[in-house]
Amino acid sequence: MTGNSFGMIFRMTTWGESHGAAIGVVVDGCPAGLELSVEDIQHELDRRKPGVSEITTERKEADVVQILSGVFEGQTLGTPISMLVWNKDVDSRPYEERKHVARPGQADFSYQMKYGLRDYRGGGRASGRETAARVAAGAIAKKILTAYGIQTIGHVVEVGRIRAREVGFEDLKKNVERNAVRCADLDAAVRMEQLIKEVKAEGDSVGGIVEIIATGVPAGLGEPVFDKLDAELAKALMSLGAVKGVEIGAGFEAARLKGSEMNDEFFIEDGRIKTKTNNAGGILGGISSGEPVICRIAVKPTSSIAKPQRSVDMAKKQETEIKIKGRHDPCICSRIVPVAEAMVALVLVDCLMRTTVCRNHYK
Amino acid sequence: MTGNSFGMIFRMTTWGESHGAAIGVVVDGCPAGLELSVEDIQHELDRRKPGVSEITTERKEADVVQILSGVFEGQTLGTPISMLVWNKDVDSRPYEERKHVARPGQADFSYQMKYGLRDYRGGGRASGRETAARVAAGAIAKKILTAYGIQTIGHVVEVGRIRAREVGFEDLKKNVERNAVRCADLDAAVRMEQLIKEVKAEGDSVGGIVEIIATGVPAGLGEPVFDKLDAELAKALMSLGAVKGVEIGAGFEAARLKGSEMNDEFFIEDGRIKTKTNNAGGILGGISSGEPVICRIAVKPTSSIAKPQRSVDMAKKQETEIKIKGRHDPCICSRIVPVAEAMVALVLVDCLMRTTVCRNHYK
Amino acid sequence: MTGNSFGMIFRMTTWGESHGAAIGVVVDGCPAGLELSVEDIQHELDRRKPGVSEITTERKEADVVQILSGVFEGQTLGTPISMLVWNKDVDSRPYEERKHVARPGQADFSYQMKYGLRDYRGGGRASGRETAARVAAGAIAKKILTAYGIQTIGHVVEVGRIRAREVGFEDLKKNVERNAVRCADLDAAVRMEQLIKEVKAEGDSVGGIVEIIATGVPAGLGEPVFDKLDAELAKALMSLGAVKGVEIGAGFEAARLKGSEMNDEFFIEDGRIKTKTNNAGGILGGISSGEPVICRIAVKPTSSIAKPQRSVDMAKKQETEIKIKGRHDPCICSRIVPVAEAMVALVLVDCLMRTTVCRNHYK
Amino acid sequence: MTGNSFGMIFRMTTWGESHGAAIGVVVDGCPAGLELSVEDIQHELDRRKPGVSEITTERKEADVVQILSGVFEGQTLGTPISMLVWNKDVDSRPYEERKHVARPGQADFSYQMKYGLRDYRGGGRASGRETAARVAAGAIAKKILTAYGIQTIGHVVEVGRIRAREVGFEDLKKNVERNAVRCADLDAAVRMEQLIKEVKAEGDSVGGIVEIIATGVPAGLGEPVFDKLDAELAKALMSLGAVKGVEIGAGFEAARLKGSEMNDEFFIEDGRIKTKTNNAGGILGGISSGEPVICRIAVKPTSSIAKPQRSVDMAKKQETEIKIKGRHDPCICSRIVPVAEAMVALVLVDCLMRTTVCRNHYK
Repeated sequence: MTGNSFGMIFRMTTWGESHGAAIGVVVDGCPAGLELSVEDIQHELDRRKPGVSEITTERKEADVVQILSGVFEGQTLGTPISMLVWNKDVDSRPYEERKHVARPGQADFSYQMKYGLRDYRGGGRASGRETAARVAAGAIAKKILTAYGIQTIGHVVEVGRIRAREVGFEDLKKNVERNAVRCADLDAAVRMEQLIKEVKAEGDSVGGIVEIIATGVPAGLGEPVFDKLDAELAKALMSLGAVKGVEIGAGFEAARLKGSEMNDEFFIEDGRIKTKTNNAGGILGGISSGEPVICRIAVKPTSSIAKPQRSVDMAKKQETEIKIKGRHDPCICSRIVPVAEAMVALVLVDCLMRTTVCRNHYK
Repeated sequence: MTGNSFGMIFRMTTWGESHGAAIGVVVDGCPAGLELSVEDIQHELDRRKPGVSEITTERKEADVVQILSGVFEGQTLGTPISMLVWNKDVDSRPYEERKHVARPGQADFSYQMKYGLRDYRGGGRASGRETAARVAAGAIAKKILTAYGIQTIGHVVEVGRIRAREVGFEDLKKNVERNAVRCADLDAAVRMEQLIKEVKAEGDSVGGIVEIIATGVPAGLGEPVFDKLDAELAKALMSLGAVKGVEIGAGFEAARLKGSEMNDEFFIEDGRIKTKTNNAGGILGGISSGEPVICRIAVKPTSSIAKPQRSVDMAKKQETEIKIKGRHDPCICSRIVPVAEAMVALVLVDCLMRTTVCRNHYK
Repeated sequence: MTGNSFGMIFRMTTWGESHGAAIGVVVDGCPAGLELSVEDIQHELDRRKPGVSEITTERKEADVVQILSGVFEGQTLGTPISMLVWNKDVDSRPYEERKHVARPGQADFSYQMKYGLRDYRGGGRASGRETAARVAAGAIAKKILTAYGIQTIGHVVEVGRIRAREVGFEDLKKNVERNAVRCADLDAAVRMEQLIKEVKAEGDSVGGIVEIIATGVPAGLGEPVFDKLDAELAKALMSLGAVKGVEIGAGFEAARLKGSEMNDEFFIEDGRIKTKTNNAGGILGGISSGEPVICRIAVKPTSSIAKPQRSVDMAKKQETEIKIKGRHDPCICSRIVPVAEAMVALVLVDCLMRTTVCRNHYK
Repeated sequence: MTGNSFGMIFRMTTWGESHGAAIGVVVDGCPAGLELSVEDIQHELDRRKPGVSEITTERKEADVVQILSGVFEGQTLGTPISMLVWNKDVDSRPYEERKHVARPGQADFSYQMKYGLRDYRGGGRASGRETAARVAAGAIAKKILTAYGIQTIGHVVEVGRIRAREVGFEDLKKNVERNAVRCADLDAAVRMEQLIKEVKAEGDSVGGIVEIIATGVPAGLGEPVFDKLDAELAKALMSLGAVKGVEIGAGFEAARLKGSEMNDEFFIEDGRIKTKTNNAGGILGGISSGEPVICRIAVKPTSSIAKPQRSVDMAKKQETEIKIKGRHDPCICSRIVPVAEAMVALVLVDCLMRTTVCRNHYK
């Protein structure tokens, strides 16, 4: 059934299989008059692109985006923006021979059960490649947010059991793109990179935690009671295939706190009401408070590993062993950063537009 | 803006303020011919009801539900089911005097910023009381799930730093309603209850973790790519005011694992393809695999505490102190159990119906 | 399945069966800060109420509305507004005896086929009584439109073969509520009333045409390409049970015109771009042009007639005859006027809010 | 704002400007396992294609469709089907010189007011070219309907004041594609064609009426109360730029009838409940009755005419004259037939799927 659209007012619909002709996205609801170029989109796609460092997959995806509609003389028209990336450097052979074997941790089995057939090449629709379309749409969202002074930034805070120290926001911005892991604690980054290389050598993979911070978010975004800002963020982020957990502010740590520790007390600074701490992660009762919005996601270790695993041939209905050759990221965390940022940006733009219509209607 | 509806095909719309005339819900999309009585609904509402033990708020909410439409001669008509609970035992006085003071951890400030006005009595629309409407709708969802052999069950696994031992599923079902905390580890339950009484005596509150398990879920539920089953669950659960985190299966622990540890290997038992472990929490690529669906939520400590807190008078724009008198739960975990079950049930029914239309269309 | 909600951003969900406990509506998405009283709603409901003249049904519906949520101290909160009308003066006996006989022109047969059961009393959910809920929601929409200088006004332009002369807009406003038929041509009104009494005496009914005009609609409402303003109006009006046709501007007459006759030429008056004629009915390419929006609906003769009709007993699966006793309007046109106005107002408010988010986003 | 998607469960999103790079559509919600080829789509596109007869525009649109996703080894995957047609034979020069002049009857003025800018070339997004995307999606819908024994067929019943005689359904199917007008009354077709050539020679255009019949529609489609089958059809058809009116069954004629004339009496034939007449157009209370579904649309004369018209230069804000050169259809009726069929088919498939979930849920 339908399920390939996201957002209510600023709405994207993505399409495409990993080894099909192309993947793409249609963005409906982008207001007219936004300056938009192919470079705006390409820049974000390049941040997600594999094959750029030793710790990501060697699959080379040119990922050159084309804008097919909705932009005229450098400005958005208010009509749907259709974007497309042709699939290149596709090698479907490794998938042919094991096409009936359900890869552990992947969607092969559940898709087969749901649809009765599937495009087994490269994971088909369930491939992480699908997130390129999200990033393309997210690039537009980011451009809109910039006009509002809102910035979204993601960074890796944990890989395996290696945890990054907390660094200030300015250092974070400075450091995060300087290393292949996208970790703002440069010491931890070195150790994380080392660990990733080790697990890669073992034919294994490793998980981690990514944090996304949005600054400049005005108070008032999010709709009670089901479309709370944190609920929308949770859905957006959990819709990424590799994500197994989402937390806001203090998150799971809140479970261990007392109310007097958790509650963020209010004070006044320069005439503005603020909170001393930000355990709420910038969201109160589902509505943004004006403090930075903070989310963290649990990223599972990449499912495709070279190590032998026990599995089942779904056609023959018999047990078997599988070793996944292909080219895969030993740790997806660094590449998920721009994708998670895109999802957060998409949620924020949608909420921003939904909020617009709540105000100033009667004079 | 709109935001008070949940579900696509089995869809509820809730309404009502905590101290208004009533709260209620309209359930649209319930198929015709389901046997449904007021008792089916009341039973679930009673599980959520406060004032039943020493560790919950003393506010007595009769919470007697009325069904106003959609049911005829004991069966659903396929038309909207409107249900209503009149607000009784309402005491708005404690809210009058501090109506301009933003309670830390609550939605007072963000609602005020969003709407420019609010019903300050009892939290208004942001009150946890709103969840009674969800539970009423969830009772219908549960009834439908029962016909499919699907069961949802929630239990408290952590309060403060006290963690419950894992118990088998049968013990879980047997134990969970036997103690006020709804913890299946009866020893831990005693210690949890003790802790809750302590924090209550201190005028404080404490958080915890609740796990919800759904058994009997067939493979194939959930829609790629945005409306994944886990994404829908994350939204559903994060839309509860007290929830700061959601995880599926191994959840945040997945971040620390290697692929070879995380991946659930497939095997065959009695002709059915199963997994040896369930780190995926019953969901692969966003689609149910046939294994039990497992979610956990981080429940923050109740924001309303008697201890003095620093805050701000929003009208006078000046700092002040607040002590929240009212009657409040020192730990909301036990009462959130039926609410979280309701949300999971609502997601499952909606996904079940969405899945129906994917199959068997061409012969 | 779901189908009881209307509107995207200003959204109503209606519920209730004709002879059930009550009927009602939840309006989600009404911005905060609108002054709203029960009288605002009751006034419109009274315009729809039956039993006020000789030419409408004798069923007396007190139709006293209650507002249960969303309004606080006389202002809307931005939260759902739940409204309810208890069903009174209900006499289900006439329906008992013929409960298995499909009334010609009614929904008995199609509901039975769709759901396998139905509330046969008074038409159940398919009753025209359901429109009271629309009128209640429409009253809020009208209040918002007034703040924008937009006015919707309906009038009967044809009953049977009696056609009203065209009258100026000021006369229309003055005359329309002065006669039971709601026809602005007072001479035609007399003849229409006479015709309605005649068909009533025959145990028959008669149809007609109602026109709804919206003035003050700013240019720019309506969304290409599927959610055009005229498409939304067509859906809104065709969703009324008695409506068999909808036309905009020249409507079906356009089929007989040449382009040079149909096209509305532009000119400038007081610096504003206007059209000399309004064959487009105020809508160009699905978007309002600033000219008055004009729709007409074909209202079928009331299906419930006393005259004997051939039909079928659905339980016994055998042919039979039916004479419908109950109390029914011989012509529904005058009573459909406030309902059609409500639907047009609901569409306009929704489009107005949807349009808000298209503009002024980048400075 | 968003407005480029249609359908709830079987949902298409269209994109593209007339003289942009391409136009296309993403179909989300098509069940897996449907055999689908490019030829299935191309066949319908060819029926809509201009340049095939003397009475349509001379613009040659190759309109070769590509399927980019959602189909694998000849079968649908259950994932989004993305289809694209590159824009060829585009000549934007005639639009350059008059780009600021609002063409009467077109969307230039309203788009300019709504968005503040527009792609003026060939009507941009408001061009009839957009309907090619609908036809591509409709081709899939038709394929699904065929599996259910449902057929949709459109024909021209009126051009200018020339009305076709009623012909039997078999003759209709036989005759309709045999003449350029797509009129089943071959005598009328000759006169219509003659009229169209005359108005073309005058530099003018002419309107008409198209009827669409759907046979084999099972009873039970359509959702009360807002998403009635006729309401959905009305929206679908009115969303076509050239349509100014929609009627179902007796339509506007119903306004002139008595209840005893309008009501379709029930009888039993071969154990099935049927109606003697079909004034209801196959829809009772918004739900299909099992009789053929019959809609008619009023098609306005093409707005683009060579005759001089008075208009306004929107940039200079001054009155001027316009003669539209380009290549335009003097009568759009014959080409709207496959488009209207597509819209009806899309509504029926969506309603069919929505209905599926209403039944057989409890055993």
